[in-house]
Amino acid sequence: MKKEFDPKTIIQTLQGVLPREQKSIALHEPLFKGNEWNYVKKCLDSGWVSSTGKDVDRFEKQLAEYSGIKHVIAVVNGTAALHICLQLAGVTSGDEVLVPALTFIATTNAVSYCGAVPHFADNEERTLGLDPFKLGDYLREISELRTEGCFNKKSGRRIKAVLPMHTFGHPVDIDPLMEVCQRYKLMLVEDAAESLGSLYKGYHTGCWGRLSALSFNGNKIVTTGGGGAILTNESSLAVLARHLTTQAKLPHAWSFNHDMVGYNYRMPNINAALGCAQLEQLPEFIKQKRSLAVRYQEAFADLKGVKAFKEADFARSNYWLNVLLLDEEYSAARDTILELTNKLGIMTRPAWTLMHQLPMYQYCPRMDLSTAENLERRIINLPSSAFL
Amino acid sequence: MKKEFDPKTIIQTLQGVLPREQKSIALHEPLFKGNEWNYVKKCLDSGWVSSTGKDVDRFEKQLAEYSGIKHVIAVVNGTAALHICLQLAGVTSGDEVLVPALTFIATTNAVSYCGAVPHFADNEERTLGLDPFKLGDYLREISELRTEGCFNKKSGRRIKAVLPMHTFGHPVDIDPLMEVCQRYKLMLVEDAAESLGSLYKGYHTGCWGRLSALSFNGNKIVTTGGGGAILTNESSLAVLARHLTTQAKLPHAWSFNHDMVGYNYRMPNINAALGCAQLEQLPEFIKQKRSLAVRYQEAFADLKGVKAFKEADFARSNYWLNVLLLDEEYSAARDTILELTNKLGIMTRPAWTLMHQLPMYQYCPRMDLSTAENLERRIINLPSSAFL
Repeated sequence: MKKEFDPKTIIQTLQGVLPREQKSIALHEPLFKGNEWNYVKKCLDSGWVSSTGKDVDRFEKQLAEYSGIKHVIAVVNGTAALHICLQLAGVTSGDEVLVPALTFIATTNAVSYCGAVPHFADNEERTLGLDPFKLGDYLREISELRTEGCFNKKSGRRIKAVLPMHTFGHPVDIDPLMEVCQRYKLMLVEDAAESLGSLYKGYHTGCWGRLSALSFNGNKIVTTGGGGAILTNESSLAVLARHLTTQAKLPHAWSFNHDMVGYNYRMPNINAALGCAQLEQLPEFIKQKRSLAVRYQEAFADLKGVKAFKEADFARSNYWLNVLLLDEEYSAARDTILELTNKLGIMTRPAWTLMHQLPMYQYCPRMDLSTAENLERRIINLPSSAFL
Repeated sequence: MKKEFDPKTIIQTLQGVLPREQKSIALHEPLFKGNEWNYVKKCLDSGWVSSTGKDVDRFEKQLAEYSGIKHVIAVVNGTAALHICLQLAGVTSGDEVLVPALTFIATTNAVSYCGAVPHFADNEERTLGLDPFKLGDYLREISELRTEGCFNKKSGRRIKAVLPMHTFGHPVDIDPLMEVCQRYKLMLVEDAAESLGSLYKGYHTGCWGRLSALSFNGNKIVTTGGGGAILTNESSLAVLARHLTTQAKLPHAWSFNHDMVGYNYRMPNINAALGCAQLEQLPEFIKQKRSLAVRYQEAFADLKGVKAFKEADFARSNYWLNVLLLDEEYSAARDTILELTNKLGIMTRPAWTLMHQLPMYQYCPRMDLSTAENLERRIINLPSSAFL
């Protein structure tokens, strides 16, 4: 028989999984036990710490090999990667881009940077990501297909792209989403900021979108301090991404010419050096994180009213951040659990405030977002560092 | 008697100043002879490599103390700093911003990022920067002063700000420029990306603008790999700059709320760690670079048709990049000198292509730019690393 729902039991269960000797446990901490020192010191000794260095090349090559995606362009962070992905997907002033309501702010801000309007789509409980079936039904109702593409009948604006985010590392259900994109002539761009190492039906997240974005922020599975990457299998897009992120400077031994409004978005070499060492350890990090996820799942299996979130059948998740999902009837206890755990030095946090509830995005178009709203009330992120 | 003008004599003179043992001499290389490895290693050992770390705080404090400017916000690069400076100066879609024609692309792109239109102003030979007197005359002719501010009579757009750049480290003539700004109700924002350590009448460049931008790119006098900073003496602007550059996240122990469209622009801690070590050596770097500048000036004093550029009376320049200025009648030899030096492994380069000559900015409003055009034909940047 399962134990009754009680915040205190939940905390005891959590403490049972986590190391007892540690006084304070972060949500996600990086681990530097490989060649970090070695590579960063070599980079400093070479004097070449800034953009376009050997470590950047190596980091990009390692990532391409690991992900199976042909072209990788390392940039300053995931937000910059998303911005360029959308721009290269043709998103421009006055377009709409479909974005999940439950996501990190960067997904939505990237749409704004292009002068476009985010249009919020619902999430689903199976993946915590964008719900492709609900999206298909919604588009049938609100959109009009013309030769040029898909138009929002109400706003009159073109819906140019869909930008799903693989929430906490869990891949969205890509196949039906691809079908929706094909049916409605929408460009697919993947926000894979949280899902480095996560597979959908055996292939790396980020390989379905025409362009995809990764992040290597300090809290990610692999870090470069700050960093991100643009992924694409199309070499013409890769060339443009490289050009746009290096201030659109035309190659020349000494002269400075630029042919577009570009960006100063390339990753510095010193950050890439750190990344090379981190990438070497990624398979081990994933193994450890998947094992921690199983420990959470097993520990919470005996408790009523909660479960530790488990990947869908089609997914092999990196379990970047573990999720404790409260049953709807117990969602009122979320804040109590957050307060108690954080007071004990066990860092937990709720999901992000939903995008349509933020003041600057409250008037954006949106579908019924009841699942996202439901999930937001029930999600608690648990400590998820690889070494736990 | 001076020696006759001859590219070969120029190259011999250059070789006389530069170290003979070095096979290849870059335009500007960083020097890591201080606490770089020590601080970076400590940062790695702490596990805190990402944004908002102790090294970022320390770097900002060191910069504030050094420059005498109250508030410093460290960001990913100088371009990001310029973008935020302009946004906080109130520059918005459809405004015009006065920018020198002879500058690096980032100055102008930052205006575009705000949706505003760059309006090109002429440079002057005394400082290589924006000519305040010519600007004053021009504005009297083309602008109309209304209660709200200054308007371009021809385009009908508001001219919101002036963004001078301290070219190659040489301060523009600020006092008369401030007068123009006051007379025409223009906001002054300084692009001090190249002038860390340069003084105008005894005070640090960047202290006159309501906001100013620094850069710590790999080629700068002090590097963080990639990095920049926003400077301001106004605490309300500093608070906003910090907020906007950290994705406008509202402080809270666990919840994620944002109240504006912000940016992921903060400098990672590992880059700041490098910067702390570099800043400790800045006074020494400036001393060395000023001594190299004098050696160039003395060496070229004997040659007809050229001179090594010397700071104005009111300036104490960091001499970030030394300039060999050809007399107008010999400007046709510029490319020959560039080719010969680069072939010999001595990296030199011309000034940047002027802003109004780039395809994406060719239709922007501009005044007569004859001095910028003249300077562009005559400038050759010489190797300027501190250790030369």
